[in-house]
Amino acid sequence: MSRLDQQMAFLTEVDRLKSVLRATTLCDGSRMENSAEHSWHIALYALVLAEHAETPLDTAKVIKMLLLHDLVEIDAGDAPVFGTHDTEALAVQEQAAAIRIFGLLPDDQAQAFRALWDEFEANESPEAQFAKSIDRMQPPMQNLASGGGSWIDYDVTQNMFETRIGPKINTGAPKIWAWLQPKVAAFFAGRG
Amino acid sequence: MSRLDQQMAFLTEVDRLKSVLRATTLCDGSRMENSAEHSWHIALYALVLAEHAETPLDTAKVIKMLLLHDLVEIDAGDAPVFGTHDTEALAVQEQAAAIRIFGLLPDDQAQAFRALWDEFEANESPEAQFAKSIDRMQPPMQNLASGGGSWIDYDVTQNMFETRIGPKINTGAPKIWAWLQPKVAAFFAGRG
Repeated sequence: MSRLDQQMAFLTEVDRLKSVLRATTLCDGSRMENSAEHSWHIALYALVLAEHAETPLDTAKVIKMLLLHDLVEIDAGDAPVFGTHDTEALAVQEQAAAIRIFGLLPDDQAQAFRALWDEFEANESPEAQFAKSIDRMQPPMQNLASGGGSWIDYDVTQNMFETRIGPKINTGAPKIWAWLQPKVAAFFAGRG
Repeated sequence: MSRLDQQMAFLTEVDRLKSVLRATTLCDGSRMENSAEHSWHIALYALVLAEHAETPLDTAKVIKMLLLHDLVEIDAGDAPVFGTHDTEALAVQEQAAAIRIFGLLPDDQAQAFRALWDEFEANESPEAQFAKSIDRMQPPMQNLASGGGSWIDYDVTQNMFETRIGPKINTGAPKIWAWLQPKVAAFFAGRG
């Protein structure tokens, strides 16, 4: 296979991410969101919101990470954040998926993309922390717009949200968490 | 409204791009593709294929253009390339859409995003020409994968494809067109 053959095989394979459904709906509640359009949406979140990070970011790197971050779901599926799943088994599936999917590319690109995904998963660099925080704050934005969405489906309470999600948004994007938190609190207060 | 209020209003509004359907299907032919997941897919095309451009590119700029390039379709809709539409009327609708949608952002970002979209539309810079070519070559890739797709729906012949689409791919990405052209020719030859 030529280099272009390998690259095109990868680009055709990743089309399948459009068929991986998430727990979150569109803002109008009309249907579940898929992981490909979600990836587009949070890449745009990063482009718009990078200025609010605590340290200057390599925004292009954040965007690349977010374009790639969910590709392993083609094999491993999306694990809803408030669902129950075997974390260790999922990690094994995602590692195998990364090997298979990035492995479709020429070696140099496979390694570069894998390094971006590993950096994202490690959640240590400023770019990874910001990307992870953005990835966590888009579903609550969708839920606020649709009137509850996955919070209702998974019986989420304000306490669950503030314990399990809030700190993850706050890690990489405290200014954005400060903006979002009162809006989420108002939503749950309104549900009584 | 605070700066973050404006940015979040924009990011919520653009969710509507997920409901704009294109003439192209997914590679498995299961359903029509929407413009948000298409934007993700071609941003990834750009990341993988930028090395094949004739001149070194600012790849981050190409990706940003592609993340934004279809936002006007939220108001103006997608105009299938082999369909019939009033080009002048569509241009007017898209200009109005750009003013409204980018106008949701703080002024500096609205101007920066509008400048990226204008550069893409002008199709003159190397980044815009490459982005436009990538945007034109993803639908034939989907059609080859699905067994014809929009070519069949719109009664497209090899001659129509090579006259109307080929030159547009060739402008910004001649090496990629040289790779794609024989595959498209073989498809149409197979249909007799």
